[in-house]
Amino acid sequence: MNLDTYKNIRYIAFDADDTLWENEMFFRKAEQEFYALMRPFVNEEIANKELFRTEVHHLKDYGYGITSFMLSMIESAIKLSEHKILASDIQNIIRIGQDLLNHPVVLLDGVKQVVQEYAQSEYQLTLITKGTLKEQERKINLSGLKELFNHIEIVSEKTEAVYRRIFDKYKIDAERFVMIGNSLKSDILPVLDAGGKAIHIPHQQTWLHETVSEESLNNYNFDTLDNIQQLRKVVFLKHPM
Amino acid sequence: MNLDTYKNIRYIAFDADDTLWENEMFFRKAEQEFYALMRPFVNEEIANKELFRTEVHHLKDYGYGITSFMLSMIESAIKLSEHKILASDIQNIIRIGQDLLNHPVVLLDGVKQVVQEYAQSEYQLTLITKGTLKEQERKINLSGLKELFNHIEIVSEKTEAVYRRIFDKYKIDAERFVMIGNSLKSDILPVLDAGGKAIHIPHQQTWLHETVSEESLNNYNFDTLDNIQQLRKVVFLKHPM
Repeated sequence: MNLDTYKNIRYIAFDADDTLWENEMFFRKAEQEFYALMRPFVNEEIANKELFRTEVHHLKDYGYGITSFMLSMIESAIKLSEHKILASDIQNIIRIGQDLLNHPVVLLDGVKQVVQEYAQSEYQLTLITKGTLKEQERKINLSGLKELFNHIEIVSEKTEAVYRRIFDKYKIDAERFVMIGNSLKSDILPVLDAGGKAIHIPHQQTWLHETVSEESLNNYNFDTLDNIQQLRKVVFLKHPM
Repeated sequence: MNLDTYKNIRYIAFDADDTLWENEMFFRKAEQEFYALMRPFVNEEIANKELFRTEVHHLKDYGYGITSFMLSMIESAIKLSEHKILASDIQNIIRIGQDLLNHPVVLLDGVKQVVQEYAQSEYQLTLITKGTLKEQERKINLSGLKELFNHIEIVSEKTEAVYRRIFDKYKIDAERFVMIGNSLKSDILPVLDAGGKAIHIPHQQTWLHETVSEESLNNYNFDTLDNIQQLRKVVFLKHPM
């Protein structure tokens, strides 16, 4: 790790789901409930495969998030049961989704303190999260972190073009920007493509769709940290005089 | 109408659905298909009432848009059929929603020319639309209007606070801002509350949830036009030298 990389950083952006707070674990729990409902028709492995296929198929229309996940569960259930599923079990699927919509916001260890420290230091902070407006806004409001960010961007995808648009919008010098996140696909590679820097903080639960092949990491340079507290050892806190 | 009101306007914002392009008519068509599916259980009036109730109930969680509408149709169908609806008809509801997700973007009369004229004139143009990111982005991309706007804002709600946030973000002087839209509730009253000006262009099909009572219009001052072409007679085109 070459700390000079981060010497001139002025803009720090954080991903939200599974970087600042738990997300995937709530989806995994919901999936387990869905597989249990599917047990009269198919085993967990088949249910998992069909649900994933359906979700990915609809991403471009439905987007990311819980309402999209609910529709994919319903469609998968109809297909996996060969149209035998009862309305009462579709209602159960809707209930699984509605529980998910109300899941608590659980910050990851150290997040509150670390974000607070950077907010008080000489950096401009941005939250960049992918998903559905209402769902992300709910979590941002409940997180207690909202006021610590200079800008909040909820986007439908995190592509190179989207990061470039954010740089333009806020007149951010890409060379002085670092993105912190758990998804190589969404938080790291497209930021590097857009000329920024990125630090990967893996989360033990990351959705399969957010993973990338090892080969696709060739020629990309970024650092990896175990947790958000380690950020202080890399991007130094600079307290205003 | 006092044309002096618009003399100092510098920022023009347009609503999208049913102001720039057709939207509600596609939902109405989808609703008709839904009522037909419900006919074995309840008549259209009851189906309509339950669907509306369910949609409004879930707005705060699901947001506005087609995926939300799909989930509300499914939930209403289960309730209205007293759990008797078959999986094949739930699949039909999903198909109604998917057709809606792919509806063509049909600009209202004169929109393209009028927006183009203002884009070439000395105004800063913003598109402010409420809904789901993916759905709104699809329509914006297909509209052929995207490049005419200086800023595009897709928001989850159009409240006074949201308009104030947009004014802050783009350093817009509210007194020099006018919003053009078909919804009194979303495009007119909250803009006036935020200190801006607003021009109402009613659309013959406006969702019940977007209507307001006549009394709530007391003390609000805004002009109403029959169509977007009339805008030229109110907010004058000023061509750069």
